[in-house]
Amino acid sequence: MIEFQPRRDAGAPTLVEQAVDAVVRAIESHALGPGMALPSVREFARAYGISTFTVASAYGRLVAQGWLDARRGSGYRVAARGRPPGRGVPQSWQPPQLGAGWLLSDIFADHSIPIKAGCGWLPPEWVNETGLHQALRHQSRVPAVQVGGYGHPYGYAPLREQVAGALAELGMQVEPDQVLMTQGATQGLDLVVRTLLKPGDAVLVESPCYTNLLQMLRLAGMRIVAVPRGAQGVDLAALAQAAQDSRPRALFVNTVLHNPTGTTLGMAQAFRLLQLAEHHRLWVVEDDISRPLLSGPAPALAALDGGNRVIYVGGYSKSISPSMRVGYVAAQRDLVRDLVRTKMAVGLTSSEVIERLVHHVVREGQYRAHTERVRERLMLAHGQAAARMQALGMQVLAQPQAGLFLWARAPGPAGQGANRLAEAALRDGIWLAPGSYFDAQERDVDWLRFNVAYTEAPALWRFLEGACRGGGGAPAA
Amino acid sequence: MIEFQPRRDAGAPTLVEQAVDAVVRAIESHALGPGMALPSVREFARAYGISTFTVASAYGRLVAQGWLDARRGSGYRVAARGRPPGRGVPQSWQPPQLGAGWLLSDIFADHSIPIKAGCGWLPPEWVNETGLHQALRHQSRVPAVQVGGYGHPYGYAPLREQVAGALAELGMQVEPDQVLMTQGATQGLDLVVRTLLKPGDAVLVESPCYTNLLQMLRLAGMRIVAVPRGAQGVDLAALAQAAQDSRPRALFVNTVLHNPTGTTLGMAQAFRLLQLAEHHRLWVVEDDISRPLLSGPAPALAALDGGNRVIYVGGYSKSISPSMRVGYVAAQRDLVRDLVRTKMAVGLTSSEVIERLVHHVVREGQYRAHTERVRERLMLAHGQAAARMQALGMQVLAQPQAGLFLWARAPGPAGQGANRLAEAALRDGIWLAPGSYFDAQERDVDWLRFNVAYTEAPALWRFLEGACRGGGGAPAA
Repeated sequence: MIEFQPRRDAGAPTLVEQAVDAVVRAIESHALGPGMALPSVREFARAYGISTFTVASAYGRLVAQGWLDARRGSGYRVAARGRPPGRGVPQSWQPPQLGAGWLLSDIFADHSIPIKAGCGWLPPEWVNETGLHQALRHQSRVPAVQVGGYGHPYGYAPLREQVAGALAELGMQVEPDQVLMTQGATQGLDLVVRTLLKPGDAVLVESPCYTNLLQMLRLAGMRIVAVPRGAQGVDLAALAQAAQDSRPRALFVNTVLHNPTGTTLGMAQAFRLLQLAEHHRLWVVEDDISRPLLSGPAPALAALDGGNRVIYVGGYSKSISPSMRVGYVAAQRDLVRDLVRTKMAVGLTSSEVIERLVHHVVREGQYRAHTERVRERLMLAHGQAAARMQALGMQVLAQPQAGLFLWARAPGPAGQGANRLAEAALRDGIWLAPGSYFDAQERDVDWLRFNVAYTEAPALWRFLEGACRGGGGAPAA
Repeated sequence: MIEFQPRRDAGAPTLVEQAVDAVVRAIESHALGPGMALPSVREFARAYGISTFTVASAYGRLVAQGWLDARRGSGYRVAARGRPPGRGVPQSWQPPQLGAGWLLSDIFADHSIPIKAGCGWLPPEWVNETGLHQALRHQSRVPAVQVGGYGHPYGYAPLREQVAGALAELGMQVEPDQVLMTQGATQGLDLVVRTLLKPGDAVLVESPCYTNLLQMLRLAGMRIVAVPRGAQGVDLAALAQAAQDSRPRALFVNTVLHNPTGTTLGMAQAFRLLQLAEHHRLWVVEDDISRPLLSGPAPALAALDGGNRVIYVGGYSKSISPSMRVGYVAAQRDLVRDLVRTKMAVGLTSSEVIERLVHHVVREGQYRAHTERVRERLMLAHGQAAARMQALGMQVLAQPQAGLFLWARAPGPAGQGANRLAEAALRDGIWLAPGSYFDAQERDVDWLRFNVAYTEAPALWRFLEGACRGGGGAPAA
């Protein structure tokens, strides 16, 4: 029932920890179900050749963590709910209510949605487990005195050097003191907004646009002006016009593997975009979070610009894990200094412990190989998803063959919107991301963002087939 | 020269890692100085009975990390600077320029200041190393798939349950969905400011006040109204008057071990303060970050309030390590939901990996014992520092005997300010924190904040003795 072989070598965890882990594994693998009785402390101890004190400590911890219930006189049982609240998937799935209240935070919290074709991250199974575990073991031998204080305001210096080295490969010459580590690329964007802009400023964004960027710009009281981005990249004529009309202070752009369309700017377009930015004296905030997922060469505005008006934002969410929350901003020295002051005022340093972990993962050899494997898996997934969508009569905006995203719409008349489709999908346990999430005015546009890493599930294709047969709306109940 | 005994047991790090660590230790302990040659790969391998491949890999990593230089034909040498940039203390210490530009971020960055009597954190040597290392080892055995995604928007659920349990001990009844994990308590304060307040709102703070709070309120465009806090706690008459005059939306308060004065509110005063807040319909933001450093009972406004208008902010910076950057906010359910949305918009989730580490440290038995030892050390340090200051004729505002801070001033006439003293101290390699850092108008007040955990250095007392003999100003050069 409980598989447990106590290890007693020097590097092993304590016996209490081992016993705790063994019971948790048994519950997670359903070998022990909710309400089932555990062996008594004495039985457990005898069965595995450990002391009753060890077993009692382990059971005590498991009760404290919510895995077990202790009942006077009847010993220990698996907690009725089987696992601590907040973890794992409930047995029967209930669709959440899609509506104005069902915003980003709710969808992140809802781990119960079986098919996450609308999410923005890699499947957890694709994570570089070996690298992460090695980094944790390594860190467990670093004297705690080295990480006992606040780290450096700019972030862990060896990691900033690593970033500077990686940016040099893209053609950017930055010193480590032009790199600021942040709590994910998203905090990097927010620090830029709070440092450079003031309420009422106009800013240019792409349409469609990264949801969180829209939310943080609204929160900061910006006037958001959207410039179309499509298969041909940014609409430069519209950009010039908007710059003329609204006198914006900054332009936010995903140069490669744009979220949500998956498109990448060509070199000539990047050049012209930067020219326009110079002409209109715009700051350019280049959110390059998906660059690690791209194999071939592609422009980086920050490299073209040579450290003048482009602020480069990157991170490790797509190449290590979003749960690390490590990103960075690279820009001219004085601006970075101002960003550091904002960072310190509103949250002090970023976590040096976690930056050391990221640094260890990155400097180990398997990082590049792992990222390369992820890129290959995504390329395959792109090919398959695009082909299946086209077979259903869906329109695919571009075929980036890299990154997470594919921007597509169901067949049928223009103007039907995608919200209704997303609502219907949710009733089937499928999370789709309708274009309204990425629209500055939250208009119900026809397109949806698909994450190709989550498009294997047959139920997704059954749903889409029904939807496309029905002319783009919800399938018949 | 290099002390190295390769371990080959099951739990040992790889031989490459062990060799890297051995060389780093030799450099850090000055057994190997800048420019010194290392044994050749072949010599090293023979000397310690490991393969040349292992040694070559280790040297390669050390070059990549900046510890060694590889020169064609002349083998490997310790890098000229001896260690990677950004780490450690330079040989000769140069005082930084104190001035308008020398703000919080700079002082955090300046690891070269020998005596940090003005800082706000525990000495890194006091960190719970055993607990932290155990947590890292434990985490290195958790399947990466469990931490491959973004984590819950509210933060790691078992840690929120732990927080709810700890708050219950203070008399607060909160469910885990009333707890939001943040990147340190400081981000918690910032999320509250951005969610509840809008530019131009008036807010009440204590005077003196936590520096970062002042900075983030300024950044958010708040009108800051300061209410005196001294040995008797908050000046309630001034609070009532300010609430009447400026119609503030919120009051920010450190109930216990106030930063910077170290004072703690009495129960009756807490009650009256909350009554005033109710009368004037103020939100009360209770920053309780130093609570773990207090042994005895003391009021918690959030407990008195029963989950109505008090927003409770806490964290683990003082009890585990500030480098974790894990804090939390507890408040009424609907407000927490709004805070989560702000958190997600401006930075997505907090790091689940680091929250799991904190959870592991907290649930292990030694956490309480370790915190208790820290409290005892601080109590001793308080007694000694206060006695020595009084022997020098310094005025000590209160003798909290707990927490980090003692608020004191040099003898001499009122109005002399403390900035000049802090500047003089800096020339001697002593960082003092003058009252101007904690003043809403940055006035040059007479008081300084001392961190008693950093008051052992004889050079500090020599400096203070000279300063006090000179009548409170800078000592003679």
